[in-house]
Amino acid sequence: MSSLLEQLIDAFRVLPGVGQKSAQRMAYHVLEREREGGLRLSQALAEAVEKVGHCVRCRDFSETEVCATCASASRDAHLLCAVESPADRLAIEQATGYRGLYFVLQGRLSPLDGIGPRELGLDILGARLAEGEVQELIIATNPTVEGEATAHYLSQLARGHGVKPSRLAHGLPLGGELEYVDRGTLSHAFGSRAEIRD
Amino acid sequence: MSSLLEQLIDAFRVLPGVGQKSAQRMAYHVLEREREGGLRLSQALAEAVEKVGHCVRCRDFSETEVCATCASASRDAHLLCAVESPADRLAIEQATGYRGLYFVLQGRLSPLDGIGPRELGLDILGARLAEGEVQELIIATNPTVEGEATAHYLSQLARGHGVKPSRLAHGLPLGGELEYVDRGTLSHAFGSRAEIRD
Repeated sequence: MSSLLEQLIDAFRVLPGVGQKSAQRMAYHVLEREREGGLRLSQALAEAVEKVGHCVRCRDFSETEVCATCASASRDAHLLCAVESPADRLAIEQATGYRGLYFVLQGRLSPLDGIGPRELGLDILGARLAEGEVQELIIATNPTVEGEATAHYLSQLARGHGVKPSRLAHGLPLGGELEYVDRGTLSHAFGSRAEIRD
Repeated sequence: MSSLLEQLIDAFRVLPGVGQKSAQRMAYHVLEREREGGLRLSQALAEAVEKVGHCVRCRDFSETEVCATCASASRDAHLLCAVESPADRLAIEQATGYRGLYFVLQGRLSPLDGIGPRELGLDILGARLAEGEVQELIIATNPTVEGEATAHYLSQLARGHGVKPSRLAHGLPLGGELEYVDRGTLSHAFGSRAEIRD
């Protein structure tokens, strides 16, 4: 087999859920039928890896210092929604009519893996809440053990700054991943978020 | 969402079996955890698309005019195995101890799709058989209707040049459950049963 082809198959295995067989199939597919698409993918990868960083306000992926959502004048700055990942943020944006802002934790509290408040940018979030503009912190971490622990921590943080914390309604299947929930369920849960009381 | 990110997600959809959700997952995975691997993939794609062509002898993918297998002195040039695709060739190479050469059809006869003998390079194959070195043409097309039609055509071609055609054995897959084998296979395997000898 051509060594460039071997390198390509090997390189495809970096993608999630792609093993040897799928990688072979992808490489052959590109070379047999999609050389143009392959080049486009090559360029898109190089550009994105080089230019996509994080928004300094919300920590979501962004090509600019402040992302388009954070910079938008038409979003409601009184509402802030904390999510674990950019994919979760996208899922909420696509499924609901939410017009507030986001904060992307890029993870969840997991002391055993060395992921504490600092790694999740909670110092930035605390400063943001202290500014006084945010009135409600919508906590949309995943309904997993670590996600719930993170939600608890965030609700305490919000209360400490006089901000009302709320949590997505539990219509979400327990143990599931927010990114893969169907839109109807996600939209319903988002709409039924409840204030967290002591 | 960042437009470079949107472009990347869109570009991933060129891969086989990758829809919107998987493409999102791949893009986020690369940006979150595998930027280096993403760059490697970008380079491997660009290089392979640019430099991998087809071997003039066997029509398999190759960076050189004649591929390493065809150029190898240690392969048995009396045996030629015809397969539909580079993936099939690789499967045989990995699974068997075959030491002969290959011919990759890059398809199968399908008159309705405009794929005839010329598209499969059967003129090249005919010239190859006419050289007189090949003694057996092992026909390893898929056991589908079109694959069988192609096999029939190839066996006629081989006989016309005084070359012995052979076909991969059909029957029960090893490790399979007889109860779950499809009727065609079971019927064929039953009809082609072989006597057990000591």
